[in-house]
Amino acid sequence: MTSKPLEAPLRTLMGPGPLDIHPRVYRALASPVIGHLDPAYLALLDRIREQLQMVFRTKNALTHVSPGTGTSGMEMCVANLMEPGDKVLCCVHGYFGARIREMAERQDADVTTLEAEWGQPDDPSAIEKKLKDGGFKVMTLVHAETSTGVQQPMEDIVRLAKEHGVMLLLDTVTSLGGVDVEIDAWGIDAAYSCSQKCIGSPPGLAPITFSPRAVDVMKSRRSPVRGWYLDAQLLDGYWSGRKYHHTSSSTLHYGVHEALCLIEEEGLAARITRHRRHHLALVAGIEAMGLSMFVAAEHRLPSLNAIRIPDGVDDGKLRGYLLETFNLEIGGGLGAIAGKVWRVGLMGYSSSPERILFFMSCLSQALGVQGVSTDLKAGLAAAMSTLES
Amino acid sequence: MTSKPLEAPLRTLMGPGPLDIHPRVYRALASPVIGHLDPAYLALLDRIREQLQMVFRTKNALTHVSPGTGTSGMEMCVANLMEPGDKVLCCVHGYFGARIREMAERQDADVTTLEAEWGQPDDPSAIEKKLKDGGFKVMTLVHAETSTGVQQPMEDIVRLAKEHGVMLLLDTVTSLGGVDVEIDAWGIDAAYSCSQKCIGSPPGLAPITFSPRAVDVMKSRRSPVRGWYLDAQLLDGYWSGRKYHHTSSSTLHYGVHEALCLIEEEGLAARITRHRRHHLALVAGIEAMGLSMFVAAEHRLPSLNAIRIPDGVDDGKLRGYLLETFNLEIGGGLGAIAGKVWRVGLMGYSSSPERILFFMSCLSQALGVQGVSTDLKAGLAAAMSTLES
Repeated sequence: MTSKPLEAPLRTLMGPGPLDIHPRVYRALASPVIGHLDPAYLALLDRIREQLQMVFRTKNALTHVSPGTGTSGMEMCVANLMEPGDKVLCCVHGYFGARIREMAERQDADVTTLEAEWGQPDDPSAIEKKLKDGGFKVMTLVHAETSTGVQQPMEDIVRLAKEHGVMLLLDTVTSLGGVDVEIDAWGIDAAYSCSQKCIGSPPGLAPITFSPRAVDVMKSRRSPVRGWYLDAQLLDGYWSGRKYHHTSSSTLHYGVHEALCLIEEEGLAARITRHRRHHLALVAGIEAMGLSMFVAAEHRLPSLNAIRIPDGVDDGKLRGYLLETFNLEIGGGLGAIAGKVWRVGLMGYSSSPERILFFMSCLSQALGVQGVSTDLKAGLAAAMSTLES
Repeated sequence: MTSKPLEAPLRTLMGPGPLDIHPRVYRALASPVIGHLDPAYLALLDRIREQLQMVFRTKNALTHVSPGTGTSGMEMCVANLMEPGDKVLCCVHGYFGARIREMAERQDADVTTLEAEWGQPDDPSAIEKKLKDGGFKVMTLVHAETSTGVQQPMEDIVRLAKEHGVMLLLDTVTSLGGVDVEIDAWGIDAAYSCSQKCIGSPPGLAPITFSPRAVDVMKSRRSPVRGWYLDAQLLDGYWSGRKYHHTSSSTLHYGVHEALCLIEEEGLAARITRHRRHHLALVAGIEAMGLSMFVAAEHRLPSLNAIRIPDGVDDGKLRGYLLETFNLEIGGGLGAIAGKVWRVGLMGYSSSPERILFFMSCLSQALGVQGVSTDLKAGLAAAMSTLES
């Protein structure tokens, strides 16, 4: 029998992730597989922990990668901190905030939801009102809402969490490695991210970090964690205690290690500045073309840019055209804003000038096919002038 | 800042897994990453399902890979089929049978355990006695106990499960792709495996399959599945319904697809014969050297060979010597038989004559260092004569 060979297309990835990854990361992925208890592998695990502590800006000892995608990291945080009956406040202003709530409900936590409009951040005064009801063990919050492109201001919320003694569980899926994340300075108790966005490696692993207080809470649980695979203490028994738990994938760890080396070499602060500069260039270009952004300027996430779909444009047709004609992937809207926005990722290695200019040119052409004209010349000029500034 | 480059050692992997993987699989791992909703990716998912149906010998529509290691597949089967209070019979004759039980307990199932001696399979007459108590919803069984190297005879147990109308949940982690697994013929309701053993790709994915009866049971659950990440119906909403659930890793899927292509090209039956032939050659060699196997001949698993550690040999020192001197990894014992056996994997691409002869030579040398003499010449002659027969 002859099997059909794999035909993996060569795309330019500018959706919510995965993004294009650096050639050095591809090379790392092809490094020889080794055993999960090999001394060389255990040394690699230690190195990845140090690198993640740098990116999360934390000294938390329980910092590592969960053996699954970002969603596994979300569930690891939720399932380890929450027990049946625990009072939890879930702040929801998009698809992923709602997903956290759904997971909390599956832990039979006593969930209170605070909804904000999609495209807006959560409002600290509304949170304060809820917290005054008292008794919350955990508050869940999305720092970078991947579904809307909103960056949540943290200062007021961090203060409120401290005042009310509530633990903060934070989604940093689309911010870690490209936007300021301050686990220790903010006093975050549990946070998770993913490997394939601003970190810049393929999907499959989820950076996680737990504060010493969160570890104490886990250790004094009334009931065992409902999941065995994502039990943080069992996992740490492998990461720190070198005790077999699961057959950790050297391939994925090679990738994330190399991607984190690239962050060390660039410098985290420089990388964050780069993400911001390219975001501003894209926004300048998009607006000069005559299109508009979905989120107000002060709350825009640099890594994920939500652009309003002009009236009368067929979203599916346009994205299909970009993929088929230019091998270019961008993201559509999720949930409540499906069909209303495009989500354009500028993250990691693929936050680059050439991708911004390529995207604008392709988008202008695709809109033209649907009879919508844009000022591409003005757009490119505005983007380039921002890139040069 | 300059980051330290990765130094991945080049090992010969002959433990319980991961094993050495084929160069074509390494090449596939470096294929360009694509988005999890890319039409090319969705086509790849369909192709992998077909390939796994071939390897599992099943027509089950709900057949795919779970987004985590083999342990995630175990938990997916347990958590989706069991609810609080469900009567479950867990057959335990090794470390992994006990792990299934632990997961079942975390689902608050009403668990009855049937223990068999480690190194022996489960006894159908003991199972029959338990089943006569009645009311069991699920029976869990390990087809290939990775901790002991025992292959469970299936015929009698399959008959008993049918007679008593109990669902069978089967661990095929160390058998799938190298040993006969007959999901449909045996009437198995849920089974899982892993990507890195007889399948021959890196760790990170877990093949799973559920019967139509198991799907009906999931659909009529009284309570939601406690885990969101491993909820089979949500996952199938992605695999079959093309609805976003998690950011599936193209890298790992490229690897498992290529490994499954290699199985198609070799032919599953021929591959199983190869695994058996190499197993017999290793056993002939080991016994002619003067060592002995842990499991009786009729219950030995061809893919994982448990060899008794001779009296007076320091296990840790010997395995350390093999790793440092020959870059050769073999497995130690787990749980109750730690320090009593070595576990030698002959799986997938790495079930090969050169590895058998290399291992025997290295083992003889390592035992010599500890003052234990073996008849290497007789061992190699016996192994080679079996290979030629």
